[in-house]
Amino acid sequence: MQWSGVITLTTDFGHKGPFAAVMRGVILTRNPDAHVIDLAHDIPPQWPPEAGFWISRAYPYFPRGTIHMAIVDPGVGTEREILVVEHDGHVFMAPDNGLLAPLLDHAESPKVWQLNIERLTSLNLAKPSDTFHGRDIFAPVAAELAAGRLSLTAVGKSVNEWTPGWLDDPDITAEKVSGTIITIDAFGNLISNIDQSMIAKFAEPVAHIAGHQIPMLTTYGRAKPGELLALVNSFSVVEVAKSEGSAAEGLGSERGAPLVITDGYTT
Amino acid sequence: MQWSGVITLTTDFGHKGPFAAVMRGVILTRNPDAHVIDLAHDIPPQWPPEAGFWISRAYPYFPRGTIHMAIVDPGVGTEREILVVEHDGHVFMAPDNGLLAPLLDHAESPKVWQLNIERLTSLNLAKPSDTFHGRDIFAPVAAELAAGRLSLTAVGKSVNEWTPGWLDDPDITAEKVSGTIITIDAFGNLISNIDQSMIAKFAEPVAHIAGHQIPMLTTYGRAKPGELLALVNSFSVVEVAKSEGSAAEGLGSERGAPLVITDGYTT
Amino acid sequence: MQWSGVITLTTDFGHKGPFAAVMRGVILTRNPDAHVIDLAHDIPPQWPPEAGFWISRAYPYFPRGTIHMAIVDPGVGTEREILVVEHDGHVFMAPDNGLLAPLLDHAESPKVWQLNIERLTSLNLAKPSDTFHGRDIFAPVAAELAAGRLSLTAVGKSVNEWTPGWLDDPDITAEKVSGTIITIDAFGNLISNIDQSMIAKFAEPVAHIAGHQIPMLTTYGRAKPGELLALVNSFSVVEVAKSEGSAAEGLGSERGAPLVITDGYTT
Repeated sequence: MQWSGVITLTTDFGHKGPFAAVMRGVILTRNPDAHVIDLAHDIPPQWPPEAGFWISRAYPYFPRGTIHMAIVDPGVGTEREILVVEHDGHVFMAPDNGLLAPLLDHAESPKVWQLNIERLTSLNLAKPSDTFHGRDIFAPVAAELAAGRLSLTAVGKSVNEWTPGWLDDPDITAEKVSGTIITIDAFGNLISNIDQSMIAKFAEPVAHIAGHQIPMLTTYGRAKPGELLALVNSFSVVEVAKSEGSAAEGLGSERGAPLVITDGYTT
Repeated sequence: MQWSGVITLTTDFGHKGPFAAVMRGVILTRNPDAHVIDLAHDIPPQWPPEAGFWISRAYPYFPRGTIHMAIVDPGVGTEREILVVEHDGHVFMAPDNGLLAPLLDHAESPKVWQLNIERLTSLNLAKPSDTFHGRDIFAPVAAELAAGRLSLTAVGKSVNEWTPGWLDDPDITAEKVSGTIITIDAFGNLISNIDQSMIAKFAEPVAHIAGHQIPMLTTYGRAKPGELLALVNSFSVVEVAKSEGSAAEGLGSERGAPLVITDGYTT
Repeated sequence: MQWSGVITLTTDFGHKGPFAAVMRGVILTRNPDAHVIDLAHDIPPQWPPEAGFWISRAYPYFPRGTIHMAIVDPGVGTEREILVVEHDGHVFMAPDNGLLAPLLDHAESPKVWQLNIERLTSLNLAKPSDTFHGRDIFAPVAAELAAGRLSLTAVGKSVNEWTPGWLDDPDITAEKVSGTIITIDAFGNLISNIDQSMIAKFAEPVAHIAGHQIPMLTTYGRAKPGELLALVNSFSVVEVAKSEGSAAEGLGSERGAPLVITDGYTT
């Protein structure tokens, strides 16, 4: 692995308190050349699926050799494992709680290890707290990996199984694709887990949500102000938007809402 | 142009999702030495004037040779152009939607180009998405500029016209200056577009807002707790504040509210 | 002092506007190698105690030789002083308004100076604004310190007194410890100023808050979903949490609420 020195953080810490900052501090103490980037801190508290969704969609935009840490960790301090994954030239670290399923389920032969800190005596880790493994385990291990002082194969035993994801993949038939709204952005756009490949054969894809049938366009500005539209967004998934407005408010839809794409309007 | 390696980001993305992060990732992939700084991500969705206001007021505090990117872009994917501007030793990139007017309207002979990505074949840009030019166009172009591998004159054709701003400049007479509240900070201070130079000749400037007449002082602590005050703030514009409180809450005033400064109290 | 080049920022600016960004810009203009980290920007407006709490608890996770700036500054532009403190291999800068008391009150022989910018003519500071000393004084001074071009002993006169803290330390008796909720994190966990050392001798510590008696456990996952628990958190203070929920919402408790720990349940 040729490390880029870049480490991304995805958490449910919100933008409150010094929690992400002390992770940076720990990383820089061990590896002053690391470049730490906040990927997202607005994951809903203790809801891993959104973290996994964003990481799986966003990692290709970072340099190869980047380490992506995700700390959405309701089981911190209990018996849950921590996974270290190598896939497509990137490395991922997360609690083994289903978070990485959106990535692992579609990865061809990823390499997966269970972190075993008892093996890592050369790192001189302080005894980790029971409640903040992001700071006490993830951060120092990522810092040492990115510094080239720790090899992936040394982090723990190789495994072929992991906790499954919390959400089903979309259900796909010849006539329709049934998925789920995963997240809502700052504009009120509703972002689903339906990949563009799933609807590639549809001649006239139509989005169904909250009783509406919505045409698919290429970009927001192609709809009239106030109109609903659906589109394949810049992360290659179907999104429902409202031109110059908030689809989330307009439809009253939230995370978890069902979204169905059919080929043509239905009656 | 002697580049500083610093690139600032101003957007309406909020602090949600990985949108700013993937722009950083794209920049670092091309230019590992770039130093990316978040200027502001809380611009109201699709409202360019506030982005232009802050950029025009904040850029002098960054090193010369900094690139300031602003992505408030309701027309993304439609026919709108992207401007690249050189002014006062800094470079600015924004959609040609009026965003940069607060800067350009007061700049002496700025150099302005329309970005033409078809010319930039040496950059090997992937086909841009229709909805996220910040990531697919702005970020790679800024990265290459800051790396010194792309010259400003090569980005596209030079132009002398651009989309006008969305807000009028303050109206100035001998007796009064009539401006607008542009933004509200975390303290509830109401920040206007009235520059201190516009009221420099007033012997006793008084701020009028929401039916109140408010004296101008030098700093927050010069008013009694709970009292309203106006002042020339640290960005050289008039601001209305409430000592140890929120002027926005106290006055019920919002973005866009009129603010008038007279010389002396009126009856 | 061996400087790490790292500078942390703690403010009450929220995540709005370019206020923290221009501080970074000023630092990088003077010291392009500085590494600026946001510690926390969500301190309640003009309430120094939370800033001091977090800084005193978080600084050990940063490299020795880090400068920690805290800008919670209701008295900006009035006669209040600015303190520069050396303690435990780190440097701290804050208005002399009680902010640093949580650190200074427990520091053994800290070195404390009052900043005197009139002495610092070699820095060529522009005349500071009356309202943003973070940008105009703190940032350039920190940049020069971290660059090794300014020595701590040159910043101003050494002092042995400072403004006391705004909150009392917990009241400690043999039977109970009475403290205060200092802050609430993104999960709704209520974080107090009761250090674990204060309850170390209790055989069965029980937390009392809002009429509830709550057992102390080791981590969130040791309680059943929906149950309240107390624990010594990762910053070594007592925290009240709700498993898979928000203790703040569940209890209706806010910053400033009293928290009492007894040895055993009371009747």
